Amino acid sequence: MTGDPGQAMDTTRHSAVAAAAAIRAGEITATELVQASLDRIAEFEPQVGAWAHLDPDLALERAREADERHRRGQTNGPLHGVPVGIKDIIDTADLPTECGTVLHAGRRPVDDAAVVATLREAGAIVLGKTVTTELAVYAPGKTRNPHDLERTPGGSSSGSAAAVAAYMVPLAVGSQTNGSLIRPAAYCGVYGFKPSFGRISRHGVLEVSRPLDTLGVFARDLSDLALLSDTLMVYDRRDPDMQPLARPGIAGIMAAPPPVEPRIAFVRTPVWERAEQSTKDAFRELLEHLGERVELVDLPPLFDAALETHRLIMEADLAKNYAKLYRDGAVQLSERLREMIESGQRVLATQYNGALETVGEYGAILDELLHDYDAILTPAAAGEAPARETTGDPAFCSLWSACGMPALSLPILQGPAGLPLGAQLVAAKGDDARLFRTARWLVESLG
Amino acid sequence: MTGDPGQAMDTTRHSAVAAAAAIRAGEITATELVQASLDRIAEFEPQVGAWAHLDPDLALERAREADERHRRGQTNGPLHGVPVGIKDIIDTADLPTECGTVLHAGRRPVDDAAVVATLREAGAIVLGKTVTTELAVYAPGKTRNPHDLERTPGGSSSGSAAAVAAYMVPLAVGSQTNGSLIRPAAYCGVYGFKPSFGRISRHGVLEVSRPLDTLGVFARDLSDLALLSDTLMVYDRRDPDMQPLARPGIAGIMAAPPPVEPRIAFVRTPVWERAEQSTKDAFRELLEHLGERVELVDLPPLFDAALETHRLIMEADLAKNYAKLYRDGAVQLSERLREMIESGQRVLATQYNGALETVGEYGAILDELLHDYDAILTPAAAGEAPARETTGDPAFCSLWSACGMPALSLPILQGPAGLPLGAQLVAAKGDDARLFRTARWLVESLG
Repeated sequence: MTGDPGQAMDTTRHSAVAAAAAIRAGEITATELVQASLDRIAEFEPQVGAWAHLDPDLALERAREADERHRRGQTNGPLHGVPVGIKDIIDTADLPTECGTVLHAGRRPVDDAAVVATLREAGAIVLGKTVTTELAVYAPGKTRNPHDLERTPGGSSSGSAAAVAAYMVPLAVGSQTNGSLIRPAAYCGVYGFKPSFGRISRHGVLEVSRPLDTLGVFARDLSDLALLSDTLMVYDRRDPDMQPLARPGIAGIMAAPPPVEPRIAFVRTPVWERAEQSTKDAFRELLEHLGERVELVDLPPLFDAALETHRLIMEADLAKNYAKLYRDGAVQLSERLREMIESGQRVLATQYNGALETVGEYGAILDELLHDYDAILTPAAAGEAPARETTGDPAFCSLWSACGMPALSLPILQGPAGLPLGAQLVAAKGDDARLFRTARWLVESLG
Repeated sequence: MTGDPGQAMDTTRHSAVAAAAAIRAGEITATELVQASLDRIAEFEPQVGAWAHLDPDLALERAREADERHRRGQTNGPLHGVPVGIKDIIDTADLPTECGTVLHAGRRPVDDAAVVATLREAGAIVLGKTVTTELAVYAPGKTRNPHDLERTPGGSSSGSAAAVAAYMVPLAVGSQTNGSLIRPAAYCGVYGFKPSFGRISRHGVLEVSRPLDTLGVFARDLSDLALLSDTLMVYDRRDPDMQPLARPGIAGIMAAPPPVEPRIAFVRTPVWERAEQSTKDAFRELLEHLGERVELVDLPPLFDAALETHRLIMEADLAKNYAKLYRDGAVQLSERLREMIESGQRVLATQYNGALETVGEYGAILDELLHDYDAILTPAAAGEAPARETTGDPAFCSLWSACGMPALSLPILQGPAGLPLGAQLVAAKGDDARLFRTARWLVESLG
């Protein structure tokens, strides 16, 4: 599929920042913008399959309401009139939320999730619900990679990444428990951001694993990603793992040049052997280009157990959170998910809490490391997107998910098949804004 | 033992508030105050056994330093010169911290716990370390109840409660995972306060169970208790379960009269059948006295599992936190603790996390209940202190510990043997200051 619309006048090519500005200036209307998105979807959705639920009339009605508010002078939201896709594990009061499983078929939440309510307050138009893998784990949905329809878009936020990559929407919301944001962003060649743990409210979102689940965002450029992140990173006491912190002010900090030229730690992680040759080659080139700004840093042997540590936590939480689905509808769960649940059922509390403590040790060591570096550079995935039978290997994301560190997927590399290869930039927990600033520096330094 | 010193001139009778004021006014010195405490200890410690570690010369040296600072005009701390006892699971850099087990014999921490550093900054003199039960669980230490030497002071904060009751110190710090503050306060006839979960830093304190452990305080009147609580309830990012909240300002809020006459919910809890007849009688009288200000409220059946829910969490955490002690020194652990650890080793992660979720449901229901009432009134213990072979039954504390709700033990009742019977007042999580105000109203309304 040639995903790029090409014509300069096609409003689906607008960035969210530009679209919001054009609406504010009266140059286009929200209705026109939403209609352009719907037209684009009508053309490419049959191939891509990014959407689980779409109600064009409803989206247009919301857009007309937004335009009406604008005419009355009520256009205060930073995302006024901008269409956004929402992963189908996030509750919406006006669209179904089925979490990628027939066991939730027809489920219609009563209330919007916190993140959806925040988006609507900011003026965004919820265009529809994007495809998730089964219950935000591994079993693929219908979505295909816009760059190569025979390949996976990655998961679990498959539809969100694909919809942004296919210019159906400029922005989408997803989530990550293991590699569900960074990996599809890498496979689809868009920017993906998983904030520090506890910075976007999960109230009204399917719980996969409380100590791991993190909402995040997709966009086609860093400014759009920053705009959406700044909008969503607000304290909500209904998410028990949030701290009442101020907004990070990412867009503002990213706009300023770094006070000194950043120093980057290249970390191969304990799963480096899983990286394909194309990834190793691309990183060798990238490192040569960055020269003395980047240093190779090896993690101590304690990190060899990182994947197992993450797996233990995630599977034990799957077993708890999906206990009712497993009991009542196991035959309708994928075999892989059943196996994960059964494995999680056997995890002891001492192992689970021991794993959480190990994660705490990882975090302390990485925090220490990031005193000396602005960010960690590491692959986002093993290579280009694989065939559609799987959603790919999340191994390059597990450690950062476990530690709750902010991570960005940057579409700055290319593989041998001409498909995107993701570079992942990771910062210390809480250092989200600096991560964006470092990312901007990195992207600009590559020209 | 007749614990009351009797003579009006005995400085050990001073409240902490009065002692701090007298030192500020130059009426007494910290050295005199500490010497009076040491004299009192020299007289009664052989019977009471409240102290695990005491270094009189060191305490006097600290007092002389405090007096020297006062002479130089540096007397800013609210506890300047006031002696305080510290439970021996809380690290001190200048005294051993042995946690009530021979497995930690001779252990000398390098650093003060956060709470000890805060006390020293506030000018307090750490007089010594008070006896804890074995590893802050059930096996009694040497401490006896000052009101009847053949009875238990309760546990696990045995020495802290007994030292305050015996006028050895006006203030002491303890901790509660199940009933370790409220129960010894009740048995020893002093005020005890367990704040809302996450309000006093546990950095540098023995971990028993992370979701349950709460530091708290003992004093002989509410004003002293408020002074110490206000000093210690400060945010510390090193305790991962703290939120950066403002100080509660308990002393100030307590000093004001309640805006309307409080309404109290009398909750018998699912363990009411464990209450001795003397407790039932005393509460009947108390309720008659309070008249229409109090209403009987029964908890729904979900709460019948509260003790089991608490036990599951605590035992699984004991199994993790004491795994090394169990592996290397099981024969030196008490049989009861060994059994609890072995029971905890069998708890599944799904059970543990399920129990935490049940606790969340309890908390939501109790929060709802406390929209209509200022506080819950309930026994602090089943009856008067039992014989020294045990530390008594913590059952009346487990639910509030699990839910992280602030609780006060008020020494306002008496049993048939003339010993204290505790009344417990519990508020919604986060409502610590109002709890004190309601307690003051309750105590004053009893004349």
